[in-house]
Amino acid sequence: MKKIINNPENVVNEMLEGMVKAHPDFIERVEGFNVLIRKEKNNRKVALVSGGGSGHEPSHGGFVGYGMLDGAIAGDVFTSPTPDQVFEAIKNVDCGKGVLLIIKNYTGDVMNFQMAAELADMENIKVESVVMNDDVAVENSTYTTGRRGIAGTIFLHKIAGAAAERGMELKEVKRIAEKVISNVRSMGMSLTPCTVPAAGKPGFELGENEIEVGLGIHGEPGTHKDKIMPAKDIVKHLMEKILNDYSVSKDEEVAVLINGLGGTPLMELYIINDEVNSILGNKDINIVKTYVGNYMTSLEMAGFSISILKLDDELKELLGDKANTLAFKQF
Amino acid sequence: MKKIINNPENVVNEMLEGMVKAHPDFIERVEGFNVLIRKEKNNRKVALVSGGGSGHEPSHGGFVGYGMLDGAIAGDVFTSPTPDQVFEAIKNVDCGKGVLLIIKNYTGDVMNFQMAAELADMENIKVESVVMNDDVAVENSTYTTGRRGIAGTIFLHKIAGAAAERGMELKEVKRIAEKVISNVRSMGMSLTPCTVPAAGKPGFELGENEIEVGLGIHGEPGTHKDKIMPAKDIVKHLMEKILNDYSVSKDEEVAVLINGLGGTPLMELYIINDEVNSILGNKDINIVKTYVGNYMTSLEMAGFSISILKLDDELKELLGDKANTLAFKQF
Repeated sequence: MKKIINNPENVVNEMLEGMVKAHPDFIERVEGFNVLIRKEKNNRKVALVSGGGSGHEPSHGGFVGYGMLDGAIAGDVFTSPTPDQVFEAIKNVDCGKGVLLIIKNYTGDVMNFQMAAELADMENIKVESVVMNDDVAVENSTYTTGRRGIAGTIFLHKIAGAAAERGMELKEVKRIAEKVISNVRSMGMSLTPCTVPAAGKPGFELGENEIEVGLGIHGEPGTHKDKIMPAKDIVKHLMEKILNDYSVSKDEEVAVLINGLGGTPLMELYIINDEVNSILGNKDINIVKTYVGNYMTSLEMAGFSISILKLDDELKELLGDKANTLAFKQF
Repeated sequence: MKKIINNPENVVNEMLEGMVKAHPDFIERVEGFNVLIRKEKNNRKVALVSGGGSGHEPSHGGFVGYGMLDGAIAGDVFTSPTPDQVFEAIKNVDCGKGVLLIIKNYTGDVMNFQMAAELADMENIKVESVVMNDDVAVENSTYTTGRRGIAGTIFLHKIAGAAAERGMELKEVKRIAEKVISNVRSMGMSLTPCTVPAAGKPGFELGENEIEVGLGIHGEPGTHKDKIMPAKDIVKHLMEKILNDYSVSKDEEVAVLINGLGGTPLMELYIINDEVNSILGNKDINIVKTYVGNYMTSLEMAGFSISILKLDDELKELLGDKANTLAFKQF
């Protein structure tokens, strides 16, 4: 295993330290916990908390800040954070207007976040939660009952974050979050596996000319392996799966996220976007906003996912709101 | 070669199309050229132009926009852009106050940008140029006489860009650019090579536990190969080379850039930052600002570089100015 780390057991701690030292104006760490919270607090809003295993950076700590999350919990690499860590985040960000938990649909995350919500309930903190399940590749999977939550979660952070920043009540923020979930679909593929530091070897294997189609962000198996093919054929397949899963009609508006999994050059992500743009253009679907980059990664995995978010006026307006976090800035 | 591309010969064109389609509010392409220019022009300022071979994304097109560059030229992968392309960029961005060319020190870039400057001179466009040579690893190298220009160039784009945006004259912007060059030092290392699409195979080889120390952003050899070692030892070596090259004293202020080469997870870049922060802290050097991410890449290469910029009041103030480009936003 060739990685630029010290002790595999300390990667999460050292990463969090490095993040806080790089961005002390945006985030601070809750002492003794793997929890990052917003530095400049807004004490008159619903608080948003997300998190999950580490190894998906900048998710989720990179999205803590104005117009997005108030707190993020970093579990061990590819491992759900424990309920006490999630509870600590909740306690630190609640200002009396309640907390919305944004959970990706993995069995461990759902269970641990729900247990934290119960702990919070015992202390009379209002907590609601939503579960993202945007990955159209497979129903059920390693670690998951139902569909997995992947990069579409970024749209959820952005839009629910904007709703909260505008001062909407918990019930409203949750309604909007659920609309995002019902309007977003994603699917990915990879060229290479990745290596969890503590494991020391790749999580799965791929042949020299082989790709994994529809895999999860922890390297969970996708729909099938295939031979490497031109970008346009890969994109065509993923877009068919996404657009066959729900109805996006002519003249409707969408936002697009081309998400790199950590080891894919931006050059390739932009080539992918060129293809996605053509496919949507040929269907007269209007792209209002496009994001390209590493938003939810799988360590050093080479690969990408496409997320399509169908917009109505409300979602479009909130998506356009200002955000200012380490990894997502929009003005 | 496993890459998400179509025809290797079209990667630059398709990438530029994908960029413009993703960010039509920031950039546009000069028709028929591999030149990206700023969409919302400021016609009362000195224009800044940079560029070089492709494969270093988001450099340099990602830095076209408010407070940074006005135009960027994309050569073929790892290949200098031709003088006519550079000249086209100059013509498109000049508004009468002159153009500053920001060149990285590679023989081809220096020659072709200078030829473009001569073409511009014949059309009475005022052009000045500066050459970045921040890499302390080696004197002379493949493609280079003198030191190579690497990620420290991002500080140059930012600070010279802020000076121009403030309305300073060409001579002043050039003076400030030269101060940045004299105040910045960088050095990098890699874990893996990268593959130029048209070549179809990696540019060099590294053993399973081997790293290349001090290499260039086109995979040019560094100072030596070594065994993989803990992050803190790698960082210590690079920081010694950087801080032995010029004087940064106790209580002086610096900005830090931890630059990923394309295939390195953000987790590792933040662990690296934690070490850099400790080393500078132990010397009582004050870190005013830290940037962590993929700013100047080498396709999918795993590795990173550290850049340290010594600040005086003028550079510090300009570094803090607002910028709004695809890949660098600060408010």
